[in-house]
Amino acid sequence: MTDLEQALEVLARARAAAEEIGVPMCIAVVDDGGHLVAFARMDGAKFLTVDMAIGKAWTAASAGVPGSVLGALVEQNPRAAAVFSTATDGRFLAGEGGLPLPGGGAIGVSGGTGDQDEIVAKAGLG
Amino acid sequence: MTDLEQALEVLARARAAAEEIGVPMCIAVVDDGGHLVAFARMDGAKFLTVDMAIGKAWTAASAGVPGSVLGALVEQNPRAAAVFSTATDGRFLAGEGGLPLPGGGAIGVSGGTGDQDEIVAKAGLG
Amino acid sequence: MTDLEQALEVLARARAAAEEIGVPMCIAVVDDGGHLVAFARMDGAKFLTVDMAIGKAWTAASAGVPGSVLGALVEQNPRAAAVFSTATDGRFLAGEGGLPLPGGGAIGVSGGTGDQDEIVAKAGLG
Amino acid sequence: MTDLEQALEVLARARAAAEEIGVPMCIAVVDDGGHLVAFARMDGAKFLTVDMAIGKAWTAASAGVPGSVLGALVEQNPRAAAVFSTATDGRFLAGEGGLPLPGGGAIGVSGGTGDQDEIVAKAGLG
Repeated sequence: MTDLEQALEVLARARAAAEEIGVPMCIAVVDDGGHLVAFARMDGAKFLTVDMAIGKAWTAASAGVPGSVLGALVEQNPRAAAVFSTATDGRFLAGEGGLPLPGGGAIGVSGGTGDQDEIVAKAGLG
Repeated sequence: MTDLEQALEVLARARAAAEEIGVPMCIAVVDDGGHLVAFARMDGAKFLTVDMAIGKAWTAASAGVPGSVLGALVEQNPRAAAVFSTATDGRFLAGEGGLPLPGGGAIGVSGGTGDQDEIVAKAGLG
Repeated sequence: MTDLEQALEVLARARAAAEEIGVPMCIAVVDDGGHLVAFARMDGAKFLTVDMAIGKAWTAASAGVPGSVLGALVEQNPRAAAVFSTATDGRFLAGEGGLPLPGGGAIGVSGGTGDQDEIVAKAGLG
Repeated sequence: MTDLEQALEVLARARAAAEEIGVPMCIAVVDDGGHLVAFARMDGAKFLTVDMAIGKAWTAASAGVPGSVLGALVEQNPRAAAVFSTATDGRFLAGEGGLPLPGGGAIGVSGGTGDQDEIVAKAGLG
């Protein structure tokens, strides 16, 4: 279970990292069930990335592994990503920026390049 | 435009009010376009209420009036609520707990009774 | 078939009527197939009403009768509205403000009361 | 905020350009939140392209960059387009013909080749 105080600390660390690299981002924290606990869209982050951040967090929580690991698997089987996406009503989103949290739940970050999203997600883990 | 700092202040005020009445809630803040800016689910708030809070905020932003006003209109026309819900892909959610913010955007609160949700949403306005 | 020039004339007449009564509205014109030909959202019209106007036009075109006639039928059978709405992916929207056009297609208007929407839709017919 | 008069001027310029190259098109203008402000389908434009034009405008508004830029990114990552499409309920549509407007919001054009759509969208910008 991810409590709100922990989630807000994850958000704050990730946000500080995004500010340090100067890229406005959307940051989502979900619980073990993939349900939203806390979310922040930084000023200038595009609204396209709202669903992307939430999707990355949901996907990392649902699989229990980093989105980048899933992304690499999916690249070997290009049809899989589209199928998983449709099967999950669009929630499945593999790739950099989604990471399980040590205490349960996951963080999802979107708004930069894959590398930038991953740096910010890692910063969220503390 | 609703910036993140303003949205977090709205969240903090609403959360303090929910703690005062002892009811865990989901609180969402969206911008003028109905897109999520900040969100918090308090410990003990059910995940059913995540989408309810976001829907109430979206609806108040989309209509520019409190959800309770829309709710009263819909009560006079029972078929409207179901139809509007489907027409908007489930985003439409009228009722207490959704309020436009003075500077633009809206707050949506879910987790208590209608009266409790409304008290907490009003507290968010400051 | 509804051509664009005719549709723009319908829009202009409806818009003038909405300005005369001082209510900002969304106005949609669709062809015989219910597909959008022309659309205008007046300044101050809420974005909730975008899908409502398009839905009313689609519904009037699909049934070939005014939305108010369908609305009266549906009131006698409250479950029908929700079922029709879901069955049509949210496009079904009966009520005042949707009217078939004499030359084919339909107009849909949303943003005011039912009576206001109907006045503006009728003005569109010329 | 994109007002209706500005949106209609964008539409008129784009339509004139489409007439000049002799290709009937759908042209959509949305506001900062991706919500429709004005739309026109030229005589002969297929109804398949209605949602394409609206999707391109939504995508350009949501990301704040031309659809062609997003399209190039997506080409490097073929699974992304399908996943983003599902994640956004089919609204995401990258490629030529979607451009942010200088004053806010975006234009989306569909009906020709990618190059033709882009020429017409650029003409809309004035």
